[in-house]
Amino acid sequence: MAFYVQKYGGTSVGSTERIKNVARRVARFHNQGHQVIVVVSAMSGETNRLIALAHEVQENPDPRELDVMVSTGEQVSIALLAMALKELNVKARSYTGAQVRLLTDSAFTKARILDIEADKIRADLDNGHVVIVAGFQGVDERGNITTLGRGGSDTTGVALAAALKADECQIYTDVDGIYTTDPRVVPEARRLTSITFEEMLEMASLGSKVLQIRSVEFAGKYRVKLRVLSSFEEQGEGTLITFEEDGNMEQPVISGIAFNRDEAKITVLGVPDHPGIAYQILGPVADANIDVDMIIQNVSHEDLTDFSFTVHRNDFKKTMNIIREKIQPHIGARDVIGGDRIAKVSVVGVGMRSHAGIASKMFRVLAEEGINIQMIATSEIKVSVVVDEKYMELAVRVLHKAFDLEQAL
Amino acid sequence: MAFYVQKYGGTSVGSTERIKNVARRVARFHNQGHQVIVVVSAMSGETNRLIALAHEVQENPDPRELDVMVSTGEQVSIALLAMALKELNVKARSYTGAQVRLLTDSAFTKARILDIEADKIRADLDNGHVVIVAGFQGVDERGNITTLGRGGSDTTGVALAAALKADECQIYTDVDGIYTTDPRVVPEARRLTSITFEEMLEMASLGSKVLQIRSVEFAGKYRVKLRVLSSFEEQGEGTLITFEEDGNMEQPVISGIAFNRDEAKITVLGVPDHPGIAYQILGPVADANIDVDMIIQNVSHEDLTDFSFTVHRNDFKKTMNIIREKIQPHIGARDVIGGDRIAKVSVVGVGMRSHAGIASKMFRVLAEEGINIQMIATSEIKVSVVVDEKYMELAVRVLHKAFDLEQAL
Repeated sequence: MAFYVQKYGGTSVGSTERIKNVARRVARFHNQGHQVIVVVSAMSGETNRLIALAHEVQENPDPRELDVMVSTGEQVSIALLAMALKELNVKARSYTGAQVRLLTDSAFTKARILDIEADKIRADLDNGHVVIVAGFQGVDERGNITTLGRGGSDTTGVALAAALKADECQIYTDVDGIYTTDPRVVPEARRLTSITFEEMLEMASLGSKVLQIRSVEFAGKYRVKLRVLSSFEEQGEGTLITFEEDGNMEQPVISGIAFNRDEAKITVLGVPDHPGIAYQILGPVADANIDVDMIIQNVSHEDLTDFSFTVHRNDFKKTMNIIREKIQPHIGARDVIGGDRIAKVSVVGVGMRSHAGIASKMFRVLAEEGINIQMIATSEIKVSVVVDEKYMELAVRVLHKAFDLEQAL
Repeated sequence: MAFYVQKYGGTSVGSTERIKNVARRVARFHNQGHQVIVVVSAMSGETNRLIALAHEVQENPDPRELDVMVSTGEQVSIALLAMALKELNVKARSYTGAQVRLLTDSAFTKARILDIEADKIRADLDNGHVVIVAGFQGVDERGNITTLGRGGSDTTGVALAAALKADECQIYTDVDGIYTTDPRVVPEARRLTSITFEEMLEMASLGSKVLQIRSVEFAGKYRVKLRVLSSFEEQGEGTLITFEEDGNMEQPVISGIAFNRDEAKITVLGVPDHPGIAYQILGPVADANIDVDMIIQNVSHEDLTDFSFTVHRNDFKKTMNIIREKIQPHIGARDVIGGDRIAKVSVVGVGMRSHAGIASKMFRVLAEEGINIQMIATSEIKVSVVVDEKYMELAVRVLHKAFDLEQAL
């Protein structure tokens, strides 16, 4: 007998029929003698409906009141799931964030969890109840309703697992685990039985968005065993997120190939290379609330350097304008060039720390296919390259094959 | 400067446009220096939508979970109204029933209010805030969300007015007050500037449904000054509900004519007249959850009597079947007859206590129009008759005129 926290997202509870399916799955765990806390999101579409309603009333909705409103989405889900479980003769009880007393700070719409009162939940579990908790929401010290921001239900699940020392936090999604790469691009892509926390962070931020990053960080901090599973399949063990200390000696060198075609690149040519130049270029970009991903600056020739970075494709034109109008004249750069027909492809794996030659193998494989590399950035556990967008799928396929990712471990 | 509790029903907050209208009205009161607590219902249709969703999951939804779910309707309304007020630069803060701590018993879906914590609201009011409270909902001692049952928002308003000693509880509805009768039947019908609590109870239960009866009883118990007003008209003083002790010497004899065509009559003929016969007849009807309104039993002849009662028209066939199959053979009644083409017309007024001849005048007026009276029931402040449905409007019109109700006081 184990103790699970199971989190079901908006798609998994998107209709009353799907809620009944979730109830059947939870009932099966419960009837096997396991203790189960279920965390649910709002039914898909509901949060957006509520936000739209708020915008009809206020252009910039008051954050406190927005949280009062948006938190009703999960409140409806928990009640429906409790009813569905009772219909299966399973004892169940729902709690809002305020009722559990999931205490947060007062940063409305993006609150951080401070504490959880475990007593009430523990008592219910010991009484044979399934406990259902509204994801994404909490309450501050003064009793105001708060929300954790988008995707916060994952964090609620991990926080409950940490506070109540659950054996595992299971995140049910519309995929059955983390894959070596996107199966739509590489049909041979394989579900990983496990992935390290750090690899997961790289994979998630590189576009294989399955888990909310904050919840993964949270799981790492509190050493919560986190597993990603499909809510639409009856069987399957999903992918377990492990932590470095778990020290799996058999960890493969490379875990997966991530990719992202949402970026655009901008290069400032012939920049006088003196201290503060990076800030002079990126400061105004940041001030315009534009997120910068890769940043590359090579060594300079004759006191001039080329400075490149990538931004989200939607921000490309705006960024080009800022650089051309506000920065280029100011710093005396020779030219500004850019392009939004690019893609980023990354090889991710903790194993590359102790294995030399991953990067060079990657470059060789791409060269053999005639794929030109436009930019390169590396971290301890990943190598990312920017290539022409049209080569993206090809690059992912040949890298997936070259690093033997289709092989079962 | 005064202190008002204002309650707005579902129709008054039925769209974001209407919520903005409510905000403008509240802001006007606030800007005149009055203190205002606003109680709002769910947007019209929302409660029914949520209940339908629950029924998709459970045939008989679990009452605790139903309350968790249905209470979200008002939670959305309070947030939207708070936003609308902030948009008008009025300081406002919303509270759910649990946040105010409107303490109730644990009778889910029909809870009774036990206590209200006034401190937080009082502090907000003193700080110049408009306080917005979700109607219809509360919280029990263990922190479970409860609801007060349909129409409970009126009761929330009255309870807040009582707990915080407001000068007046204003119930905004889609009518501009209580009328001597329905203006659609009698165009000369006149808005009453005041009506006694008891008359109001009779008028409400007889079909002029404006206020929820329980809230009126509550107002009477705690001596809350209650006023019914239109939320769609800018001016107008509505109708004030007074209490007997207010002792208005100029109280008219008759306040209004109520009517109701939702009933059906059933008569059990030739019933052996012995103790317990009323229970033998009505017990099985009550067991089938059928509400009985009028009950009439006349003195018996030769130990046989006729026993009549009325039920809601929708329950007519079911009731006839119960009486014919379960009761008639059992008690040896001669026959069972009934009809659902009837209407009840009532003359209501506290003044009739001290004025003889109201009933006889009513019967004479109806007789002059050739309207046959099928049943008669009286209380201290009303006389009700059952007539053929087709005469209902005529009866109401002639009685309205005969009792001089079109005259301004």
